[in-house]
Amino acid sequence: MTETLYLEDLQPGQKFTSHAEEITEAEIKEFAQKFDPQPFHLDHEAAKSTLFGGLAASGWHTAAMTMRLNVTGGPKLAGGIIGGGGDINWPTPTRPGDILRVAYEVLEVTPSRSRPERGTILLKTETKNQKGQVVQTSTVRLIVQRRPA
Amino acid sequence: MTETLYLEDLQPGQKFTSHAEEITEAEIKEFAQKFDPQPFHLDHEAAKSTLFGGLAASGWHTAAMTMRLNVTGGPKLAGGIIGGGGDINWPTPTRPGDILRVAYEVLEVTPSRSRPERGTILLKTETKNQKGQVVQTSTVRLIVQRRPA
Repeated sequence: MTETLYLEDLQPGQKFTSHAEEITEAEIKEFAQKFDPQPFHLDHEAAKSTLFGGLAASGWHTAAMTMRLNVTGGPKLAGGIIGGGGDINWPTPTRPGDILRVAYEVLEVTPSRSRPERGTILLKTETKNQKGQVVQTSTVRLIVQRRPA
Repeated sequence: MTETLYLEDLQPGQKFTSHAEEITEAEIKEFAQKFDPQPFHLDHEAAKSTLFGGLAASGWHTAAMTMRLNVTGGPKLAGGIIGGGGDINWPTPTRPGDILRVAYEVLEVTPSRSRPERGTILLKTETKNQKGQVVQTSTVRLIVQRRPA
């Protein structure tokens, strides 16, 4: 998506989809080594006897990959993708070789009362693998610029 | 912390603290390049005119650093730190050179009804910088093993 979207261009129910990207075993292990060094994110054998039943990406890696897809292939929001938080869930683990894609739905659009140049949107994201399994859902409030006069 | 904590060892109100680690400018830019390539996470000059007013870490980098502190210096939960999701907020941006530390509080301890060998806890985390400013809060439900008979 290349067209910049201002707050005025967004409405509840609007949907977008990112492009797709693979998450490799090497990337899963590298991220885990740095940020989540637990056996089920680092080693196939050690992962077998855990709840994951095999090597799985850190949930924070799935979140980071989702953000990558948001920025490089999601809706191009005016001012960038800036959020103060939200909720996040990982219903299914991300596995080596998974090809991830993010679907977006605008839930709310709220002009700011105090800041005439901007507002917020509530955005739902759903990150799916190539089998259509949902590896992450999130609902986040983002700041979006209004169209300059 | 080196002692493994089973579900029986945990109760609401219990608190823990991680060790502290610095997040460097190079790390902020490297993470952003990979996962959140937006100007305010990549470049001092470009960041000045944005909402952040200067270079700031991606929220997902703050989340990943928090997870690193959880795993390497947080409470050592039996079975590892495995969560299905939760909520996350970033009240203050993480800046280059910030030294982060995580405070934990157990909110709930719930034995599983169907799985006698485990249960869940609801854990609140608060990640602070060296000035005591809160850069992240989260509330997550984690799976914890019960002590083997």
